[in-house]
Amino acid sequence: MPVTETVTATQTPAARALPDSLTAQLKQVLGPKGWSQDAHELAPHIADWRGRYQGATPILLKPANTEEVAACVRLCHEAGVAITPQGGNTSLCGAATPMGEVLLTLKRMTGVREVDVDNDSMTVEAGCVLENLQTLAADHNRLFPLSLGSQGSAMIGGLISTNAGGVHVLRYGMTRELVLGLEAVLPDGTIWSGLTGLRKDNTGYDLKQLLIGAEGTLGIITAATLKLFPRPARMEVAFCGLASAEDAVKFLGLAKQVSGGAVTAFELMPRMALDMVLEHVPGTRDPLEGEHAWYVVCEMSFGRANGARETLEDALGQGFEAGLIADAAIAENDSQIHDFWRLRETIAEAERAHGKAVKHDVSIPVSKMPAFMAQATTAVEAAFPGALVIAFGHVGDGNVHFNVAARETGADDDFIAQAAPLSRLVYDLVDSFGGSISAEHGIGILKRAELAARKPVDVAVMRAIKTALDPKGIMNPRVLL
Amino acid sequence: MPVTETVTATQTPAARALPDSLTAQLKQVLGPKGWSQDAHELAPHIADWRGRYQGATPILLKPANTEEVAACVRLCHEAGVAITPQGGNTSLCGAATPMGEVLLTLKRMTGVREVDVDNDSMTVEAGCVLENLQTLAADHNRLFPLSLGSQGSAMIGGLISTNAGGVHVLRYGMTRELVLGLEAVLPDGTIWSGLTGLRKDNTGYDLKQLLIGAEGTLGIITAATLKLFPRPARMEVAFCGLASAEDAVKFLGLAKQVSGGAVTAFELMPRMALDMVLEHVPGTRDPLEGEHAWYVVCEMSFGRANGARETLEDALGQGFEAGLIADAAIAENDSQIHDFWRLRETIAEAERAHGKAVKHDVSIPVSKMPAFMAQATTAVEAAFPGALVIAFGHVGDGNVHFNVAARETGADDDFIAQAAPLSRLVYDLVDSFGGSISAEHGIGILKRAELAARKPVDVAVMRAIKTALDPKGIMNPRVLL
Repeated sequence: MPVTETVTATQTPAARALPDSLTAQLKQVLGPKGWSQDAHELAPHIADWRGRYQGATPILLKPANTEEVAACVRLCHEAGVAITPQGGNTSLCGAATPMGEVLLTLKRMTGVREVDVDNDSMTVEAGCVLENLQTLAADHNRLFPLSLGSQGSAMIGGLISTNAGGVHVLRYGMTRELVLGLEAVLPDGTIWSGLTGLRKDNTGYDLKQLLIGAEGTLGIITAATLKLFPRPARMEVAFCGLASAEDAVKFLGLAKQVSGGAVTAFELMPRMALDMVLEHVPGTRDPLEGEHAWYVVCEMSFGRANGARETLEDALGQGFEAGLIADAAIAENDSQIHDFWRLRETIAEAERAHGKAVKHDVSIPVSKMPAFMAQATTAVEAAFPGALVIAFGHVGDGNVHFNVAARETGADDDFIAQAAPLSRLVYDLVDSFGGSISAEHGIGILKRAELAARKPVDVAVMRAIKTALDPKGIMNPRVLL
Repeated sequence: MPVTETVTATQTPAARALPDSLTAQLKQVLGPKGWSQDAHELAPHIADWRGRYQGATPILLKPANTEEVAACVRLCHEAGVAITPQGGNTSLCGAATPMGEVLLTLKRMTGVREVDVDNDSMTVEAGCVLENLQTLAADHNRLFPLSLGSQGSAMIGGLISTNAGGVHVLRYGMTRELVLGLEAVLPDGTIWSGLTGLRKDNTGYDLKQLLIGAEGTLGIITAATLKLFPRPARMEVAFCGLASAEDAVKFLGLAKQVSGGAVTAFELMPRMALDMVLEHVPGTRDPLEGEHAWYVVCEMSFGRANGARETLEDALGQGFEAGLIADAAIAENDSQIHDFWRLRETIAEAERAHGKAVKHDVSIPVSKMPAFMAQATTAVEAAFPGALVIAFGHVGDGNVHFNVAARETGADDDFIAQAAPLSRLVYDLVDSFGGSISAEHGIGILKRAELAARKPVDVAVMRAIKTALDPKGIMNPRVLL
């Protein structure tokens, strides 16, 4: 039976006491700059940024290279001592907060090992911050398309370990699809060198795919070879008003066909979310006359500027003719593109201004998304009087942020107290639609019990693999499995 | 130390005797249409199509649905009897030839469970033939881009189990990237239901990625949910003459940039391969005046017809200006597109007319491909007097078919006798360039010893996973590991 974990701070665990000999060996391997037990330095590393989890660690390890990571893991493996690996510490589900384990940060491993322009690839170390990698690619006239809110702090090792999503999945895929090769330290301290820049390599099980999204439970990613793409020459963005979510899904299909796959983002939001943004976020305005039940931000990216605007206009024209969209505005310049996107990107901010919400990062097959949203909204509002559903998101990927707040301001705490049964209701519906209870945020500590209850066969197979590769269970225990 | 397996027929193994009770139970589960022990019916299933491997089986199982597959596997698992799964039997490395094991064909499982146009996905059973799936997608105004020589017989279950490649990897990726969800029977007979149509699902290890490319050693794929794409509105193809392979790689980068990623195929061939084709394949002609050292077939696909030709012309114009291409012809219609492609696609046929060859399906980072081809050619010609290197292939993916024949016709058998040391020389160079000894054909029986010798850490991890999921070792033994 599914168990919904509520979103409340857990009690602070104690840092595990390490054998003195292990501590001494770790310090010796890393040198004076390579570790810390200073409470002030540790503080930002042992809590998650949203303040949901407060952890503890006996020592923070800061290896400078792969060999040092391997040496640390080998020592911990021999001693049977558990490790939590950490990148930019931007997890939304507690995947990188140590609960007494040794904490190992990759932040000193920021080397760029190679940019191979002719191979459209770059090989970088785990501690590189995403925003820097986007810039590095642009400096070589290439695009690294991974893009998400925390890109100023998230590090590539963590992004790969959690198979991060973001706003360009529709065109470029999840992080999983952007990785050509990996280097990792396995749970016994062995260095696995899978840093290939190959597009084709059919030599057995794809071990990198196993490490991607494993949330650090099968090893520590130390470096990666990433795919680069041509930079789009032109972006076109429209803000559309529609009568229904069904129409949005139909229009998505039409826009993809008419543009030949140029749609790079397709974001849906209800009128109520727009109202919230207009009320709470300064400087925003509705680009359309009149009110519509739903809105879509539709972004297309083109390899050539020539014909780009015409393509978007063609898609919109056909959308009007088919009765799928009621009104639309096209961004005339970068500033308007920014304004349109801002209406979508500030929903979370407007929501916070409204009050606390019970949040669900779920996915549904795109075709079934409208029916899911309608049924889930009806069910939640019936079972929880006073509930206000704010459902919006990456409809192009079938990923909706199904958030539920108290309709009345000031009723937050009573409302949030119902989080567990409310989430169970939502997740049960997600299951019945063949969806996923975690589209892009992962499992971490937050959804571990849900996963075990809802996917027993999967979890049994995962446990068998985990036990085979990490028999002592030292890699990020308590996370995922 | 690497051990090169030579490409010669192995001795025929004996069919393993099954316990009578197991045979009776299998027959009862499947009914009279669901099995065969008739030598005539078995014959095409127990040899591979190239005649390299002659196998044997005590019984051919022909389950009609997933439940029957599961029942068969469960019975074999209990009895500790091994199974070889088989799709269209088009493996190039012996991955589907039973060497005494029970043989299980998926050919009766040809159901289409769902085409979800709005979700750009279709769910089909393992026995569906690729060409039929291409047609099914086209009937719904969509593209299923997987495309390769054996598409008239290869079945989707086998294509997924071997992570097939083909001519459109450059744009759409390997089979691995075309699969959204899988259903499979695990080695103990458990049905794993992972048939999701989701683009985003971050709920732990991606088990489908583990089964893809596992060559049937971790379970039997029974159905899959596949990605669909918009159909390109226009294809443009150029046949280019170039002075060097370096220029080809530089021009590839330029063409990708200028077209904004519209290049869907980029195939390289040396003058000598073109000469062979012109000599041996009736009805072929050189589209260019004068001779060039290298040729490229460059295909671009466009979502919109408008501006397509102009884009190709622009890329070629810039290629001329930069001194990368010496001459080029643009296909004016479908018939010319067909003619250009035929020059590339009949190389294997022309090669056969010339004589036997020692073949290597290898990959190298695109940027290092020219250096690899030059060094490998020099090394092979120096070590094996009379050797003629015919290197061509999917340069856009870094995949080259590095084939070596006797320069003189009639010297075949003496030359082929040197296959083992010749392949070792080639594979050692591939390793030194960070390449792969199997780009798209897989490991099977053919390259198992090579893999074990060259990637010991990888193979140790694979074995640990195999043992965890298939402790009795009944799934396609002797293949891959």
